[in-house]
Amino acid sequence: MDKIIEPNFSKGDGLIPAIVQDLESRDILMLAYMNRQAWEATLQTGRATYWSRSRQALWVKGETSGNFQMVKNVFIDCDSDTLLLQVEQIGKAACHTGYKSCFYRKLEGKNFVVVGEKIFDPEEVYK
Amino acid sequence: MDKIIEPNFSKGDGLIPAIVQDLESRDILMLAYMNRQAWEATLQTGRATYWSRSRQALWVKGETSGNFQMVKNVFIDCDSDTLLLQVEQIGKAACHTGYKSCFYRKLEGKNFVVVGEKIFDPEEVYK
Repeated sequence: MDKIIEPNFSKGDGLIPAIVQDLESRDILMLAYMNRQAWEATLQTGRATYWSRSRQALWVKGETSGNFQMVKNVFIDCDSDTLLLQVEQIGKAACHTGYKSCFYRKLEGKNFVVVGEKIFDPEEVYK
Repeated sequence: MDKIIEPNFSKGDGLIPAIVQDLESRDILMLAYMNRQAWEATLQTGRATYWSRSRQALWVKGETSGNFQMVKNVFIDCDSDTLLLQVEQIGKAACHTGYKSCFYRKLEGKNFVVVGEKIFDPEEVYK
């Protein structure tokens, strides 16, 4: 029987980074962190679930905004300490600022400038 | 004058994650970490330079294999604590195992299985 490969949560205070990619556009939407509990919740529900470092709590992405991430594919890296999730992004926007992607600023010369597409007004979504 | 936006190295022991995406195929190649020194070296040389957590040393990606990463675009996330590099991957392979991407294993059922494309034999490259 094949050896079961699992994410290695032993580095980084029990947290590993998860890269989130839009399955269809292949845009990178965000990076978040998972502990074992978040990983298991993601597998069980099919909805991306992270560990919020700022709130120190389990975080079902989209629980406030409705912009859930439906997990379609999961990849693990060579060291088993980083995950790549390919998701269907409900609501077309991943970032709490209202942009489609959290990576909405691009380096131009010596500074980062906004290049991303804004999908919603965060003041209307997070009341 | 616009405020200069910079990566925030104050979290995570002075290290921030950098997602590396192939500019052309839009495949995710790897995730690595940068400290300020690695970030500045990347900007100065145009070659992706990281901080190796295992070796505790500056790491010019490709210095051994020749598989340098030429940085074409850099994005920063909403919290300024994660970078996204779009690169031209020299040698077509980013992973030290010889695979094109470090994310060469995909979750199928309850286990991860190899789905990636192997480009080189690591025993020949890293002598």
